Amino acid sequence: MGATIRDIAEKTGVSITTISQILNGKGSRFSEATRNKVFQTAKDLAYKPNFFAKNMVTNRTNTIGMIVPEVTDPFFSQMVKGAEDYLNAHDYMILLCNSSQDSAREDLYVEELLHRAVDGLIIASPNILASNVFEQLEIRHKPYILLDCKRHHREEGNIFIDDYEGGYMATEYLISLGHTQIGIITSDDSFYSVEERLQGYLACLEKHQVPGESAWISEGDQTMAGGYFAAKQLLTTTEITALFVTNDQMAVGAYRAALELGIHIPNDLSIVGFDDIELAEYMAPALTTIRQPIYDIGKTAAEYLLKATQNPTEKIANKKMPLDLIIRESTQKLDARR
Amino acid sequence: MGATIRDIAEKTGVSITTISQILNGKGSRFSEATRNKVFQTAKDLAYKPNFFAKNMVTNRTNTIGMIVPEVTDPFFSQMVKGAEDYLNAHDYMILLCNSSQDSAREDLYVEELLHRAVDGLIIASPNILASNVFEQLEIRHKPYILLDCKRHHREEGNIFIDDYEGGYMATEYLISLGHTQIGIITSDDSFYSVEERLQGYLACLEKHQVPGESAWISEGDQTMAGGYFAAKQLLTTTEITALFVTNDQMAVGAYRAALELGIHIPNDLSIVGFDDIELAEYMAPALTTIRQPIYDIGKTAAEYLLKATQNPTEKIANKKMPLDLIIRESTQKLDARR
Repeated sequence: MGATIRDIAEKTGVSITTISQILNGKGSRFSEATRNKVFQTAKDLAYKPNFFAKNMVTNRTNTIGMIVPEVTDPFFSQMVKGAEDYLNAHDYMILLCNSSQDSAREDLYVEELLHRAVDGLIIASPNILASNVFEQLEIRHKPYILLDCKRHHREEGNIFIDDYEGGYMATEYLISLGHTQIGIITSDDSFYSVEERLQGYLACLEKHQVPGESAWISEGDQTMAGGYFAAKQLLTTTEITALFVTNDQMAVGAYRAALELGIHIPNDLSIVGFDDIELAEYMAPALTTIRQPIYDIGKTAAEYLLKATQNPTEKIANKKMPLDLIIRESTQKLDARR
Repeated sequence: MGATIRDIAEKTGVSITTISQILNGKGSRFSEATRNKVFQTAKDLAYKPNFFAKNMVTNRTNTIGMIVPEVTDPFFSQMVKGAEDYLNAHDYMILLCNSSQDSAREDLYVEELLHRAVDGLIIASPNILASNVFEQLEIRHKPYILLDCKRHHREEGNIFIDDYEGGYMATEYLISLGHTQIGIITSDDSFYSVEERLQGYLACLEKHQVPGESAWISEGDQTMAGGYFAAKQLLTTTEITALFVTNDQMAVGAYRAALELGIHIPNDLSIVGFDDIELAEYMAPALTTIRQPIYDIGKTAAEYLLKATQNPTEKIANKKMPLDLIIRESTQKLDARR
């Protein structure tokens, strides 16, 4: 066991109450000599305050709760890494919670994290959070950052991308290559971000007077398997020459479906993904995609949250993160194949 | 704020000390009527004990520390998910630490987790842990499970696979297909598990009297990029017809290298991976690999650890997890290509 406050008292002859106040930064009324003696002895004995006793005094845990929909999704694990790197460098740790995209589990996690007195929360959720979740957060005065949650119309602490713009960019690039029969794979869970990407796709088709068909829209789980089945359906029932897959994981599945059907990418089918996970540039052919700065999103969330814990009365800033079209090998001009 | 113990006292007229003892299961000397009254009132008020105050009494946090080398590696995120699913179902949470394979960071994390009084630790590390880490764990009587750490010759609490056997299996399968020029991609960090896989490869070549060449062994980072560079080097400087890549992530990079060199898998080159991450079956061609039950390894670690926290005097069991050769499309008979 490490040294206790009692050991410091024995060694210095100073009372436990006094030592406690000095070590907790509330000892200004004691002499400098006493304060120095206490600090030096604490250092000599390698004293570390008992975590729980200290927390009861400071009401701080140096712990941040982070809720993500799915840690095995490389998108979210990259986001966690960005947040963790920043937090660790500032002596904070992460209590990580995997909601499996289940909104009831998210509510439970928020409650449990508050019970553990985390200093703040980062919540990445594709769902609409229950209103009592926000009530709890407000009542306990806990700062929190929402990721992927623009739908809440909260005025502060949103780190977000413009999904609509991203969907528009992907579609416009395919139109610029001469494609007019452009399919889209969305998520079957009606996630806000995916819905926005779909709206961007539809708006872009309309703007360029490219008539769309409802048969070109297919849904699936946001997984490789989900992308596989959705693409298989699209590619067997329509004549599309291009496909916008609203997430890179699903694009992996779409590649597999095309391969099995003997459809060559990009000769027979151009594909644009979304996210730019690490795998994208290793796919065969390398995936053209809309890049989100995933690591930076996690890092920025952590940075804003720590700032909020230090300045609880100030509003937390919002930040829109940039999107980029990354052109690789999975797209080509329509006439190049004729 | 939730109800406090003071609220229960006001409502029941029972003293705070008595209530505290009753709620902490130490109230057998009080009448059943008093105990019932206290429990019922606590329930009515939705009383939750203050987390830190409770911890100071029970010395329990229902928190497990988990250290992994790299959370963005799908292998480890899958392992975390297995552990988390089990722990959450048993009312535990995970404090997750990403060591970035840095052994100094691992030591710091162990210290920090002990300071936060986690109830136990799961440590997945490719490194030899510093001896003072183990001393600290022993002194504080904290149960822990080692993953990927067979090298410590610890007598209990090891969940492991036989890496040597896995390397042997992969190599033997390639030999059974008629290959005699078989390269191998290992890790440049001299990880124990990878070293064992290499030893299995060498032993298998020797057993089948297939002469090996040192030029057939290439090293890289355990990432897609690492596999890419290592494969590029092997494929440009040797005449190998088969390749054992000791981790699936690296195999993704090896595919990319082969593609760029115009080497067709499996016609020109058979590849066997290791791990069976989710991506393996979506690769083009789908990857033949040695499957580890990754999710189950995490789950079993969590299960054994919770058992250990409940029975601190008993030894923690060891468990060897099974390996399987999963044959897909990336391997074929040598003469099939002639």
